[in-house]
Amino acid sequence: MPPSTHASARHDEATPDDGYGALLRDAYEAGPRRGSHLQVVERDDGYVGVEDAYRYFTRPDEWEPCERRAVAAARGRVLDIGCAAGRHLLALIGDHDAVGIDPSPGAVAVARDQGLDVRVGTVLEPGDVGTFDTLLLLGGNLGLLGSPGNAPAVLASLSRLARPGARILAVGHDPYAAATPEHRAYHDRNRECGRPAGQVRIRVRYKSWTSDWFDRLLLSPSELQEVVAGSDWKLAGHYYSGKVGFFLAELTFLGAET
Amino acid sequence: MPPSTHASARHDEATPDDGYGALLRDAYEAGPRRGSHLQVVERDDGYVGVEDAYRYFTRPDEWEPCERRAVAAARGRVLDIGCAAGRHLLALIGDHDAVGIDPSPGAVAVARDQGLDVRVGTVLEPGDVGTFDTLLLLGGNLGLLGSPGNAPAVLASLSRLARPGARILAVGHDPYAAATPEHRAYHDRNRECGRPAGQVRIRVRYKSWTSDWFDRLLLSPSELQEVVAGSDWKLAGHYYSGKVGFFLAELTFLGAET
Repeated sequence: MPPSTHASARHDEATPDDGYGALLRDAYEAGPRRGSHLQVVERDDGYVGVEDAYRYFTRPDEWEPCERRAVAAARGRVLDIGCAAGRHLLALIGDHDAVGIDPSPGAVAVARDQGLDVRVGTVLEPGDVGTFDTLLLLGGNLGLLGSPGNAPAVLASLSRLARPGARILAVGHDPYAAATPEHRAYHDRNRECGRPAGQVRIRVRYKSWTSDWFDRLLLSPSELQEVVAGSDWKLAGHYYSGKVGFFLAELTFLGAET
Repeated sequence: MPPSTHASARHDEATPDDGYGALLRDAYEAGPRRGSHLQVVERDDGYVGVEDAYRYFTRPDEWEPCERRAVAAARGRVLDIGCAAGRHLLALIGDHDAVGIDPSPGAVAVARDQGLDVRVGTVLEPGDVGTFDTLLLLGGNLGLLGSPGNAPAVLASLSRLARPGARILAVGHDPYAAATPEHRAYHDRNRECGRPAGQVRIRVRYKSWTSDWFDRLLLSPSELQEVVAGSDWKLAGHYYSGKVGFFLAELTFLGAET
């Protein structure tokens, strides 16, 4: 939740290379409201979309039902991976030892300014954050699996963060649900290149900043089951809810106590 | 003003090359509301911005004060050049013989669906629309001057549309008012290339569609005065009002009766 004053937001922690952090900082300092700060998402086939930074400051009653369900289902020590400004952590900190990581120094600064324990880190290089009972991949972060080739390394990193009996709670987006003609054409193009239909190569732009290209892997639940096969993780269940195509996946840790 | 039903909007008049028309049609058919349909504006230095299609469906009380003033000052037969879906014409048709032109077949279809007399045409190729007492260049359309090299042809075309005593009422944007560091850097880059600071090369994107690159000429009132020198038009006055940098320019026709 945005505070009513922002005087202590730390400008100097957002580097010129961190346009995403600048976006969050700008939205935060202006007092988040719909439509005020927008980022452009450019797909490698030229398709463009726009995302409202307000989403990073929404309250639980504004979330997709499956995000609310994920946060409600968290237990024990919790890590929110790719936590942005910490909207999920704000709902967790009363009842949980909850930590967040995000690659953006600017995002981390805004999250800390909201009183959260958030550190710079990625799913592959999370830093020295310890181990957890619940690992959250919300706000599209199931897509951090990236590609079938990249997924085993991501799942192995998640194993190193997991306590015995740990669960991953991840919100995914089924690319085949309510796909528009433009999206179906992209799926076909991917299949022709031997890539999964839902492997989406994008970059994000804000004002003068453009991110590197990166891949997000959108999966149906059955595709997710295939991707995790052979890892320390098992798809225990999935729940569709809210906007068409969004689902909560629950993965349980099969790894032995270390 | 958006109508409450959109059943008769004509899909087939928006071509696949007319993404701008598709944007207007999509927003119109969904029932225009803020944030629902957005277009990306990409500058040739990589800077990106986002424009809300809702602006094309705003009511007079939502306009910049100088746009309201322009519409209120229109007299006689009126041509709205680059009229989009016709938001200004809707406020004019009760009291005026008012015609619009726009290069986008999709925009023209939406405007006609709202009961307006709008035809496909551009400032340089307006078609057989006759002559006018008032020529409107609203919604940033003073920028259609394009460049100092292009401006004489635009002004000559406007002369051919003008009756004796005609006026151009144009809303401009002074590029030096409240320029951000990114915009100032762009001005410097332009000057280094020998272009006016406010000559902005952009393209517009919506979903899978990307327009060609085109130039919009942002001018201060004194620069406008220089650009029209030697033409049939004289800058009679300008009025700053509303959002910083926006001004209404009134140009009077010096041409003899033909």
